[in-house]
Amino acid sequence: MHALIVYCHPEPHSFNGALKDIAMETLQRLGYSVEVSDLYAEGFDPVEHPAHFTKRADTESFAPLTEQRYSFREGILPADVQREIARLERADLVVLQFPLWWHAQPAMLKGWFDRIFVYGGIYSGSMRYDRGRFPGKRVICSVTTGAPEPTFSLHGRSGHIVSLMWPIHCSLYYLGMDVIAPQIHYGVQGGGLSYQEEESFRAQLEADKANWARRLESLEEETPIPFTGWDDWDENGVLKPEHPTRWRL
Amino acid sequence: MHALIVYCHPEPHSFNGALKDIAMETLQRLGYSVEVSDLYAEGFDPVEHPAHFTKRADTESFAPLTEQRYSFREGILPADVQREIARLERADLVVLQFPLWWHAQPAMLKGWFDRIFVYGGIYSGSMRYDRGRFPGKRVICSVTTGAPEPTFSLHGRSGHIVSLMWPIHCSLYYLGMDVIAPQIHYGVQGGGLSYQEEESFRAQLEADKANWARRLESLEEETPIPFTGWDDWDENGVLKPEHPTRWRL
Repeated sequence: MHALIVYCHPEPHSFNGALKDIAMETLQRLGYSVEVSDLYAEGFDPVEHPAHFTKRADTESFAPLTEQRYSFREGILPADVQREIARLERADLVVLQFPLWWHAQPAMLKGWFDRIFVYGGIYSGSMRYDRGRFPGKRVICSVTTGAPEPTFSLHGRSGHIVSLMWPIHCSLYYLGMDVIAPQIHYGVQGGGLSYQEEESFRAQLEADKANWARRLESLEEETPIPFTGWDDWDENGVLKPEHPTRWRL
Repeated sequence: MHALIVYCHPEPHSFNGALKDIAMETLQRLGYSVEVSDLYAEGFDPVEHPAHFTKRADTESFAPLTEQRYSFREGILPADVQREIARLERADLVVLQFPLWWHAQPAMLKGWFDRIFVYGGIYSGSMRYDRGRFPGKRVICSVTTGAPEPTFSLHGRSGHIVSLMWPIHCSLYYLGMDVIAPQIHYGVQGGGLSYQEEESFRAQLEADKANWARRLESLEEETPIPFTGWDDWDENGVLKPEHPTRWRL
């Protein structure tokens, strides 16, 4: 088994860095070979931009998806995109390790989605959702938050964590992956911020590392988050009227 | 009245570019002075990174929020961050114009949130939500999507657009702004992609421009999206048990 950890944090000695390390150690101990995309350390460029496409399908007007498809077909995708796609392709398990910044993944990781999930290569109109490129590939987000757990509950002021993760999970399912429920590390206040002192920070880190390692040990037995698929939708891409999960409004 | 349009698209001749132009023209006609943050054209760097902080609060370990607060207090925020904050401060109305990429804003715009919404300056533990920095400042997202409208309905396969916009709206409300319901331009397939031919693309663009201009003309009369606030939450940041909007589970 092979795992890819996509790690997004600017500071190696951060809580996120420690969680990346424990995931790497744990997965190796479980017999995985492990590769890490360390987006900050590798200087990944998250901005989809004409400058990435040296040979263009359309030199007058830049349409990202047109150029992605063209470059994929011609085998001339940017080197970093090719590298990340190859990493994604060979992984049985993908772990995304990142802090929740402004209710979503940091720009660095958002741009990894924007640039690596190439139209015409990784997905297309007929190759997505449960007919996606990566059936059986498992993916899990391991996420730190600044605010404490109750604020991310259904009625919490930070927003329900299920809702905040939804756009990210939608994107991962779009590629056909099996999305495992995320591991959320709440209330991480590194760097001398408000509520948390160094000692409690260390204690929390050790507890979260242990929980995360335990979770990874039995990850293979977990059932992915259920999504609807092509058989559930009508010709407009909407749940069929008779579908049991439709809301009765 | 003064408006700021934060515009995020790599191609000036895009659908997004045209929507930015019509918003600018319309708002000027209505008597606004208008400023544009053209993130791509200005080469904005969306990656929060130690390199942005020349004088550090903590030189050993990089904690973004610690450095943001320190730089704000010392008056040494990066020049681009200072410029964007000043633009935000002087605007009565903020328009975010962007395409929905991977169920969210592009990395370029996500990084504008990450870097400009400075901890200790634009928000803090006591200055957020309905006690936020920008009471009365109105903000609206104008968003293009690739997929057609029905797929973004409650039971649509693209995900309900209300859910997809939720993390972005949470972030804007966090700063204390009045968030107006977004203007969504569905089914924009620029650049010779699948369903749409050039002629129908042009027709849609003219229709969407007209709709958007009409919407802007009466925007001042619109009621913002309601959010709960400090008086609604208990000491854990959760809706009080007696709050009328709590789900009965």
